[in-house]
Amino acid sequence: MTTNRIRVGVLGAQGRVGQAICAAVEAAADLELVARVDKDDALDVFTESGTQVVVDFTHPDVVMSNLKWLIDHGIHAVVGTTGFDDTRLAEVRDRLADHPEVGVLIAPNFAIGAVLTMRFAEQAARWFESVEVIELHHPNKADAPSGTAYRTASLIAAARQAAGVGRSPDATSTALDGARGADVDDVRVHSIRLAGLVAHQEVLFGTQGETLTIRHDSIDRTSFVPGVLLGVRRIADRPGLTVGIDPLLDL
Amino acid sequence: MTTNRIRVGVLGAQGRVGQAICAAVEAAADLELVARVDKDDALDVFTESGTQVVVDFTHPDVVMSNLKWLIDHGIHAVVGTTGFDDTRLAEVRDRLADHPEVGVLIAPNFAIGAVLTMRFAEQAARWFESVEVIELHHPNKADAPSGTAYRTASLIAAARQAAGVGRSPDATSTALDGARGADVDDVRVHSIRLAGLVAHQEVLFGTQGETLTIRHDSIDRTSFVPGVLLGVRRIADRPGLTVGIDPLLDL
Amino acid sequence: MTTNRIRVGVLGAQGRVGQAICAAVEAAADLELVARVDKDDALDVFTESGTQVVVDFTHPDVVMSNLKWLIDHGIHAVVGTTGFDDTRLAEVRDRLADHPEVGVLIAPNFAIGAVLTMRFAEQAARWFESVEVIELHHPNKADAPSGTAYRTASLIAAARQAAGVGRSPDATSTALDGARGADVDDVRVHSIRLAGLVAHQEVLFGTQGETLTIRHDSIDRTSFVPGVLLGVRRIADRPGLTVGIDPLLDL
Amino acid sequence: MTTNRIRVGVLGAQGRVGQAICAAVEAAADLELVARVDKDDALDVFTESGTQVVVDFTHPDVVMSNLKWLIDHGIHAVVGTTGFDDTRLAEVRDRLADHPEVGVLIAPNFAIGAVLTMRFAEQAARWFESVEVIELHHPNKADAPSGTAYRTASLIAAARQAAGVGRSPDATSTALDGARGADVDDVRVHSIRLAGLVAHQEVLFGTQGETLTIRHDSIDRTSFVPGVLLGVRRIADRPGLTVGIDPLLDL
Repeated sequence: MTTNRIRVGVLGAQGRVGQAICAAVEAAADLELVARVDKDDALDVFTESGTQVVVDFTHPDVVMSNLKWLIDHGIHAVVGTTGFDDTRLAEVRDRLADHPEVGVLIAPNFAIGAVLTMRFAEQAARWFESVEVIELHHPNKADAPSGTAYRTASLIAAARQAAGVGRSPDATSTALDGARGADVDDVRVHSIRLAGLVAHQEVLFGTQGETLTIRHDSIDRTSFVPGVLLGVRRIADRPGLTVGIDPLLDL
Repeated sequence: MTTNRIRVGVLGAQGRVGQAICAAVEAAADLELVARVDKDDALDVFTESGTQVVVDFTHPDVVMSNLKWLIDHGIHAVVGTTGFDDTRLAEVRDRLADHPEVGVLIAPNFAIGAVLTMRFAEQAARWFESVEVIELHHPNKADAPSGTAYRTASLIAAARQAAGVGRSPDATSTALDGARGADVDDVRVHSIRLAGLVAHQEVLFGTQGETLTIRHDSIDRTSFVPGVLLGVRRIADRPGLTVGIDPLLDL
Repeated sequence: MTTNRIRVGVLGAQGRVGQAICAAVEAAADLELVARVDKDDALDVFTESGTQVVVDFTHPDVVMSNLKWLIDHGIHAVVGTTGFDDTRLAEVRDRLADHPEVGVLIAPNFAIGAVLTMRFAEQAARWFESVEVIELHHPNKADAPSGTAYRTASLIAAARQAAGVGRSPDATSTALDGARGADVDDVRVHSIRLAGLVAHQEVLFGTQGETLTIRHDSIDRTSFVPGVLLGVRRIADRPGLTVGIDPLLDL
Repeated sequence: MTTNRIRVGVLGAQGRVGQAICAAVEAAADLELVARVDKDDALDVFTESGTQVVVDFTHPDVVMSNLKWLIDHGIHAVVGTTGFDDTRLAEVRDRLADHPEVGVLIAPNFAIGAVLTMRFAEQAARWFESVEVIELHHPNKADAPSGTAYRTASLIAAARQAAGVGRSPDATSTALDGARGADVDDVRVHSIRLAGLVAHQEVLFGTQGETLTIRHDSIDRTSFVPGVLLGVRRIADRPGLTVGIDPLLDL
């Protein structure tokens, strides 16, 4: 009884991410891996194999032509490749206008825990006097704070501003440089770099007598897999362009 | 310019909770404490003082007659007194039917962090293979698990069941009695009792390569205050009966 | 059978700290509270009552004359009053030279958990590539980092230097100001200020594949009490001057 | 200038652990990997290559004959192979008696963070009224609690008993089965099983107003490497048998 399984193809199948996705698709009872494609392969294998959904973790240089081909051939796409700005998103929407039955999901972050952390932080933001963000990563990371922490702090700041909540109280009058962290739209963000860590983030909220902490720990590089599979399972029911996996989480 | 401040009365003003509420109302720029009432006092002071909202943290024996009097006199109520079962809630609804302009908020838990923890846990429940709950309290607590942890686990279990998510994976084949915690609808709950703690709860979710932790720490007994003030500020705009502060949190 | 109980006096008995100590002494089966003294009272009450150990949480202006009187009268002392520099400590040692049977304990921090945190951090310091310190306090605190965090970082740095351990690895090349915290002798320290917190500190160590975290949470102002009682019970067996409670902890 | 590097051999070089050790030895500036041996290889390669220290992560069936050969040939050994009971340790000591210059280190756990956690827990045990242990592992683990948690709880219990400390206070009168965890010598131990975790342990101590938490997180399988390298560097200076890496940590 394999006839009802979703037929999945993977673009960039030999990359580290692609390999993890292939393994996960093969392990899933409701999915069937029917095509693995890498940069020198023709895309025709997707049509020949009856692929219904293609996962694309390739490169900004090739993802747009991949996407156009997939849309034109009526194949849904789940895309983790980076580099999508407003112009590119508009191009994808245009192309989809001629193929209203096709669904495309483009997401900057497929880790469900990371996405929920941001969402919950946004929801909680206005209900606490105080908020700070701590992100903790391996010591090889080049930027501080992390992009996710920066974005989380911005979302929190926007939610507080919209609700008319002022700055977190802070009576600090004597401080060593840097002790109070970086300021992202009035939200303090602290970056820890420690051997033995991978990628972690903690959002701390506080008000009279209580605190709420939302913490996300990503301890291996395959934490994107469940989010990708979710996209594969849902995208056929979401024609048009979906940006981010949030809308799939029924929040 | 005090004319626009909400005129607040407190029932049970001399109790420990009542005192904390009186202090908080007095400290709030947009609220005015106009009446403090205890068990031997007449309720007329509320009408005489032009009270708009009364906070009731009294006793199950008297709260129903308090509420009827308040509703009949067109005064909104924010109620933290315990003992409201379906019968009592129905009685309140009946009384409110004749006074459609009056708002009554009855909540078992005014700690915003506790309410958000439950809500977020419910939303996250279906997206992770695994979930367990740890609650940590001072060693004088009589019941294990706590009522809040029991309720949190039940909400998580219901959300997972509704989404068709099975039990958390668990290969344990050799265990000491109790090591794996209590079973609440297939969700494992662990109760820690430790001197130096007050009331804390942690919900742990996990899936491939990542975990999400939602933790609530309540470290003093006034953590209900912000939730009560929120109720006081909002109840005039919510005629009828509201149960729990969740609907006020715009989630 | 109260005859074997240690006879305890309290100097500064009406202060907030003094009250907590009086209550704790009265609650301890092996201690007897025989004298409460405040600033306008004569010290003679200690000799009249047969006091064996006096606890002094008073003021830098009066503590030296208190101590001299106690030493001269053969009474042991446990001192939490601040302001002891090397000069003052030398004065106390001199006075004790003439009364070799008297024990005096002077400690800047009586919270056993804080002292153990520092000690363990010092012991662990050389065994991990990476270390950072996070301290978290209520938002009314004036200084950042806290004195305890500063001292903890200094102890860690000294232990690493003595063992020839270099700086924690850190590839950060792009950072917002403050993101990476304050630098205390090459140890990064991050200060969180949040409503709903009291006084907390976390020391994070990391090396290949593992991290070790030592966390101290002080959630009410009486966390000094067990350390003071420990001092009261032990000081008679430690003639001379003892600085800090570390030597009493049998580490 | 490689002449001063320690010449290292690895037994079980092709195993997962052996590979990680080979890689680490090769990456260390002060060590030189001179021999890789697996089960069908002759041990003579160690003498031929001038190996000074051999690391043995093999199998209980072969480790004793490996060790005898190494001792007889004057080669130091660092052993992570399991299965050493008192009889086996006595045999090793006997063999070493004839070769007093040889050092052998046999350790059940090379993760420095795990060893420090146990040591610190033992030191802190007597100073807190309350203690509980939480261990958290991936869901494929067969036993609950983990061996490390069981041993940690036993060490804590022994330290408390030696100091005359009674049971942790606990007023629980109504509990669901298992809520309060397993009882290991009067210390409560809780086992969490969660997808997305590897191996983690938390020891919680509490007394009036404060708690101390010692947490160890092991997030990949190579966390034994730094402890093995430490053994390799130190064993030549420790003739005779050393059990456990604790004595190498200068605590």
